[in-house]
This record gives sequence, structure tokens and C-alpha cells, in this order.
Amino acid sequence: MSGASKIAITMGDPAGIGPEIVAKSFAGEFSKESRSVVVGDEGIMRRAVKLLGLSLEMNVVEDPADGRYEPGIINLIPASGLPGDLPFGELDARAGRAAYDYVERATRLAVEGKVDAVCTAPLNKEAMRLAGIEYPGHTEILAGLTGTKDYAMMLVAPDLRVIHVSTHVPLREAVKRATPERELATIRLADGAMRKLGISEPRIAVAGINPHAGENGLFGDEEIERIVPAVEAAKDEGISVSGPWSADTVFLAARGGEFDIVVVQYHDQGHIPIKLLGFESGVNVTVGLPFFRTSVDHGTAFDIAGTGKADHSSLLAALDLARELAASR
Amino acid sequence: MSGASKIAITMGDPAGIGPEIVAKSFAGEFSKESRSVVVGDEGIMRRAVKLLGLSLEMNVVEDPADGRYEPGIINLIPASGLPGDLPFGELDARAGRAAYDYVERATRLAVEGKVDAVCTAPLNKEAMRLAGIEYPGHTEILAGLTGTKDYAMMLVAPDLRVIHVSTHVPLREAVKRATPERELATIRLADGAMRKLGISEPRIAVAGINPHAGENGLFGDEEIERIVPAVEAAKDEGISVSGPWSADTVFLAARGGEFDIVVVQYHDQGHIPIKLLGFESGVNVTVGLPFFRTSVDHGTAFDIAGTGKADHSSLLAALDLARELAASR
Repeated sequence: MSGASKIAITMGDPAGIGPEIVAKSFAGEFSKESRSVVVGDEGIMRRAVKLLGLSLEMNVVEDPADGRYEPGIINLIPASGLPGDLPFGELDARAGRAAYDYVERATRLAVEGKVDAVCTAPLNKEAMRLAGIEYPGHTEILAGLTGTKDYAMMLVAPDLRVIHVSTHVPLREAVKRATPERELATIRLADGAMRKLGISEPRIAVAGINPHAGENGLFGDEEIERIVPAVEAAKDEGISVSGPWSADTVFLAARGGEFDIVVVQYHDQGHIPIKLLGFESGVNVTVGLPFFRTSVDHGTAFDIAGTGKADHSSLLAALDLARELAASR
Repeated sequence: MSGASKIAITMGDPAGIGPEIVAKSFAGEFSKESRSVVVGDEGIMRRAVKLLGLSLEMNVVEDPADGRYEPGIINLIPASGLPGDLPFGELDARAGRAAYDYVERATRLAVEGKVDAVCTAPLNKEAMRLAGIEYPGHTEILAGLTGTKDYAMMLVAPDLRVIHVSTHVPLREAVKRATPERELATIRLADGAMRKLGISEPRIAVAGINPHAGENGLFGDEEIERIVPAVEAAKDEGISVSGPWSADTVFLAARGGEFDIVVVQYHDQGHIPIKLLGFESGVNVTVGLPFFRTSVDHGTAFDIAGTGKADHSSLLAALDLARELAASR
């Protein structure tokens, strides 16, 4: 039963929309079938519940085992003690520090087996930097905390999934990072993640780097020298993988049902189609960690923080996927 | 009146679906309001009309001025004399040579002012290469024939337009080609093309190269060193341009009506969103030539050539856009 899986939800940057979308999720259908704890800040969560006018009780615990998993209750593991009047929508070193601390605590819970998956609300890199914490994003924090070498960012939209060979690096650097080793590692991660989602024989497509996937070397040799050898090696391992495919048509094919997931070569190659197809409902998954982590596919939206307007559908989708992945553990 | 504009339509690779989609277009509404000539091969066009069972009369002329522009008539300017039994769907040097000749002849007609725009059916690079003609695509042929230095490929889908800083080059080379000069030239071409389409104050967005448009230099410095100076220079010229914007969200904004066109940095950055949004109805426009050239956004489809199954909606869209652009000349 997936309902029995425990998920740690990080509250995200306390000055952003994270606390509000977490509160909205607990007020809806989600809480009825979930055993989830919020890792965050009690005062900030109470403020979010109040500004939204929700009837939610806060149950502060130190261990997920002590939670009361009933509708109308937010089980909260406190990981910071911020002032209740922290300004909305402003970069704040305290908020950046706290957001990092939530991720660290949630990671520990997952590594210790006290939760089965982690779902994260958005943090703000600038705020973290003000606190002296330099990371390009959640994915790198989680990889760092768990000492994971081979990991990848997967994005899941309603009818398209992609997994990235590289993400937060300059494009010229991304071309260099597309080594046969990294290609093969990403194909393996894709295969493993699809199996966790219940697909017994995942069909994986690999996108090319260059226009028309290099057109037999005419527009670049990365496909021939680096992608083809990795695809062949993966096939030898029994993985159902094909490519490199031209990036401008492979997503249509995948969306049309020909592939379960597309291995993409750089950040925008995967993000452009997912954002176009799944805006507000896309989910970001870190694959390769000792546990699965899902995340909303949007930012802290400082411009609307504190107004109650934030849409929590991406968080609901991220929580659903976390439950699905956790159930397969 | 746009109906008075003359358009030269090239027949495309004679072994592909070009002749069939051209014939289908003339059989429909299109011919009633158009003064268009086909540059191609009489025998091949007759074969296409016959296999489709259409009632179309062939009127062979040497000059568009001699055409009879009435429904049910295809005015054809012969530019090759291929055998009527040329195999369907096969790479053939004769077909590659003929397809190139059509483009050359149509270009001459446009340069001499005998037609107002050119619309091209798909050719096959491999077939051209068999004939000893080495070009990555139509765009480069047309630029070469007209001695055009600053040109760009624009793609038009029903609710999104993009124009490329570079196209058929390896991705690592595309990063290098994104110079301030080329950025500025492309912004100017975008502005001019939008004005030709009747937009009096075009709103142009420029996409970044790197993830999150470089995130202030964190993920690459191309935006700061090359794109920002070009955007500023264009603004100084009075062009309504903004950016660099993050490539994974700018297309949503443009589609939502915030921008009239997006300047994209490399082939796939523009082709991925257009193909996702406008498959089968996307139009490819070469901007910067002495005349406008539009094209279908698909290939020769050798697998279905000769079956009559080819969809001509992209050609109809390309013809419509050619008329619109020609009318503004």
C-alpha cells in the first residue's frame, strides 16, 4: 500500500510560497492517504495556515514515527526557529540558512530510513548564498550530503519524462560533460527509475547534442564519438535504448508513446519541452540518490509570497510521484 | 491586394512527397486567390496529379507573366526533364540535381522581380550530395545564390515565432557564433520581419544560451559578454527588445502573448518548441534575403512518397505566409 509510505516534505525558503503550498496540500485530498511530515519551522507554518484561513492542527514531533497521520493535521519536524514576522518575498540570509537546514534534516531522515522519500518545496539560491551556502540547486545539495557520484535530474510532465546528462553548467561545458561514461550512467539511471515506476521494459531514447543529432558527423561528432558507444554499451547490458535521436522530433515521439523517457544532453534541452508541456504540473526528481527526491518545478515566487495566491498543483504532483516511487522501494 | 502577389513554388526532391503536396495545394482553395507558378518538372508533376486523381491542367510557361491564374491550372516553369518513371522514395543524384536547379531558377525569378516570394517544398541533402552539391539546407543555398551575409532562419508556428542566431552547426560551434554582431544582426532581422507581417512595434525577446540565461554569470558568461551588449545596442536603435531570458520559460511567455518573436541561440533551442507546438503546420522562413522565402517544416518523407498520403497542411501554411510577406513588399 502506497499510503503507508512516509514522505518528508521540506518547507522551502520561508520567505517564498513554500509554506503556503505545503499548507494547501495538507488541506486537500492529499493528507487523507499520506503519512507525511513537514520539515520546516513551526511559526512560519502556522502563519501560512492562518493567512490561508485553513483548519489545520500543527503536531510538532522529532521523529516521523511519532506523527499522527490523520486528515487536518500537519506533522512538523522543526529544523529552525525563525521569527514569526520574517518578511515575505525578500532575500534573507536567515531564510536561506533555514531552507538549507530543512533539506539537510530531511536527507538525514531518509538516509536513516525514517522516511521513504523526500519532496522539496522551492528554495532560493541567492538567499542561501547570503548565508554563505553555495549550491546551484537542490540536486547538488542532496548529492553532496549523500556522497552520490552518479545522479541525474529527471523531469516528469503528464505525458513526457526526461533525464539530464548535465544540468547547471554553462552550455559549452555541458558539451564537454557528455562523455561516454556519463551517457551510460544516465541511461542506467533512466532505466532504474522507470522500473521503480512500474515499467517492466522501459523504452529509453537518447537525444543528440547537435542539430539533427549531428547528421552523421556533418554537424558535429559528439554523437558518433560519445553517445553511440554509450548506447551500444547499454544495449549490451540488456537495456532497451535507442538513439541518438534528433532533439527536435524525439519529444514528439516520446509524447506519442514511443518512448518512456528521453535522455537529454543539457539543461534547456530537457527543460524547454517539459515547461511547454507541463507548466505548473511538472515534477523534478533526483535519480541516483539512496532515496528518491521529488520537487516542484517552479521557484519561490517572491512576488506573490504571502498573498495566498500560489498554486499548489506542482507540489501535489510531486507528492504523488514521491509516494509512487516510495511504494516501490 | 495580396492575391496579386506572385509566388514561385519549388517542387522539391522529385522522388519525395514534394510534387504530391504541391498538386494537393493547387487542387484546393489555395489556387483561387493566388498567382503562383511551380518551378519543377512537367512529367513528375503530371505523375503526381494523376496518382492523386486530381483534375488539374498543366500550363507550361517560361515566364510567370505568361501564366493563366485560374482555379484548376498549374502554371509550371520547367527546370529539369526527368524520366517519368523516376523511382519514388529513393536517393537519386538526378533528383538531387533537379531539386537544386528548381531553387536556383526560383531565386533568379525572385531576384529579377518576376515573383514576389519563393516557397519551397522539401529537398534531400543526401540526394544533392550524390549530385556533387554540398549544402546543409535551403537557407544556405539561397544565401549563397544571392550573396547574402546577414540572414536567419525564422520558424513560425500558429502561436510562436522564433529566429535563429545559428542553425546547422555543431552546438559547440553555435556557442562561439553567438557574437554581439550576430546577435544584433538577428535582432534587426527579427524586427524587420515582424514589421513586414504588419506588427508596427514588434516586441522581441532574446533567449539566453546557458541554463537560466547564465544566472548572472554563475552558469556561463556568454549572456553578459555577448548578448547583453547586443540587446542594449538594439534598444539604442529604437528596437523593442528584451533579454536575455531563460530559455525554459521565454517560449511560454511568447506563446502567452508577451512577445512577437523569440531570438534563439542555436538550432534545437528554436526547433524543439516549434516542433512541439506546431508540428505539421510550422513554416520555415529565410529572413534577410532580397526576397522572402518560406518553406514547409518537414522533409521529403521518402517512406510515403508516391502513396498520396502526404499531408499538405504545412505547404498551405507556407504559401499563406509567403503571400502575406509578399504583399508587404
